[in-house]
Amino acid sequence: MTMKYISSVDNKNIKLAAKLTEKKVRDREGLFLVEGRKSTLEALKRPGLVNLIFLDDSYQAEYQELIADYNNLDWYSVNSQLMKRICQTETPQGIAALVKKPQWSWDKIIAEDSLLLLLDRISDPGNMGTIIRTAWAFNVDGILLSRGCADPFGPKVVRSTMGGILNVPLFTDLSEEQLGILKDNKYIFMGADVTGDNSFYDMDFSNRLVVVIGSEAKGINDDIKGRCNYLFKIPINSRADSLNAAVACAIIIEMAYRQRHPG
Amino acid sequence: MTMKYISSVDNKNIKLAAKLTEKKVRDREGLFLVEGRKSTLEALKRPGLVNLIFLDDSYQAEYQELIADYNNLDWYSVNSQLMKRICQTETPQGIAALVKKPQWSWDKIIAEDSLLLLLDRISDPGNMGTIIRTAWAFNVDGILLSRGCADPFGPKVVRSTMGGILNVPLFTDLSEEQLGILKDNKYIFMGADVTGDNSFYDMDFSNRLVVVIGSEAKGINDDIKGRCNYLFKIPINSRADSLNAAVACAIIIEMAYRQRHPG
Repeated sequence: MTMKYISSVDNKNIKLAAKLTEKKVRDREGLFLVEGRKSTLEALKRPGLVNLIFLDDSYQAEYQELIADYNNLDWYSVNSQLMKRICQTETPQGIAALVKKPQWSWDKIIAEDSLLLLLDRISDPGNMGTIIRTAWAFNVDGILLSRGCADPFGPKVVRSTMGGILNVPLFTDLSEEQLGILKDNKYIFMGADVTGDNSFYDMDFSNRLVVVIGSEAKGINDDIKGRCNYLFKIPINSRADSLNAAVACAIIIEMAYRQRHPG
Repeated sequence: MTMKYISSVDNKNIKLAAKLTEKKVRDREGLFLVEGRKSTLEALKRPGLVNLIFLDDSYQAEYQELIADYNNLDWYSVNSQLMKRICQTETPQGIAALVKKPQWSWDKIIAEDSLLLLLDRISDPGNMGTIIRTAWAFNVDGILLSRGCADPFGPKVVRSTMGGILNVPLFTDLSEEQLGILKDNKYIFMGADVTGDNSFYDMDFSNRLVVVIGSEAKGINDDIKGRCNYLFKIPINSRADSLNAAVACAIIIEMAYRQRHPG
């Protein structure tokens, strides 16, 4: 058992954790912070990801069992004031963890008959988090993020994923080369687009598939749109405005899940 | 043409608009503020709703046509600084309107074979706004809100509805009496609940229907759950956490829309 006590804001782990609100620090360190019981448990389930755990000292009794189960890890006891300094959540349930960004095998995911999402400049952190959470729920095999997307490891996104951030393979900074590899591997690109000729109802989501979701303000960019084998739309009341990007994405991948997991 | 010029923060309309961020003021005045081109246009489409319009003076040229089309209304030209004082959005596109809360006929909605949503303590404004926006897109005939829901006329909710707030009949402060009337009028209550015995895939959403969505943290309260004819769940990957409330709601009402508007 290696419970250590931190009482100073100048402690290097406290300083590091607080700095992880900045994308450039997350990128440099390959780390991010998860807050709360649920997300910390998800991180602990994946061996080797958790660097260290911060525990609010007033919550120690509540986490006795977890501390015992993971007594090979570094636990840091801090007071509530320090916990607030680290966490962005108002009520982080007394626990937070420094976690390595999960690494995923691109080759393996391509080789399987995967359902992939391609997010083109989804910039709202709430939408990004909800999409990752929903992708986890409906067995999406991987998410490709274009430049201009919200950083999936930012605090608000991580929180909204409800643990999904640790379970869905993510590939950021999508490149031309990756798009080419997907085409070479016979992935069908289907873009959700309000100008699409096809109805969502008629689409077959059962094959090697990349579902493209475009930025809410601007839709899918012309280059990626040009690579789509199909553009399709979700029928809605014609007087209404449009669907939120995370909502449209959820409706599509729920249908894909149903088609890919019959019965 | 009745363009008036306001240059003082002490002007009574400026003060009123700024105070509409408070629920008690919105309730007392029966008014709320809509921001931006899209929502203002939606408000203008419904005769009698718009009390007055604020226009950022640097945007006057852009809105010439609209000003001409609605020259019977009170237009107030303000500078950008005053506009910022009124609006919560960072870029309100130079336009905002003071709007009366729309009134809807409960009797008429009950008498038709309506698809209704019952929201039980949905407290996140983003979720509330997304649900109203999605309800508009999928022809939901009315939304009943329990006490404890986010106020649908709050600035963040209004913004997220993308005009839906003006187009979907809303009934706040749901009462026991209303629940009784729905039962008397043969409305079937279907509750979305992770413990539900029924699968979403087997549900028939084509009749007089109340779809119940519970608070994300607590689910549906026991009293309302007891009134449900069916509890059903949306099948997801069993290792995943759960769906966001607005996402679950969207998946359900998209299916209901498809069943109710075949072909």
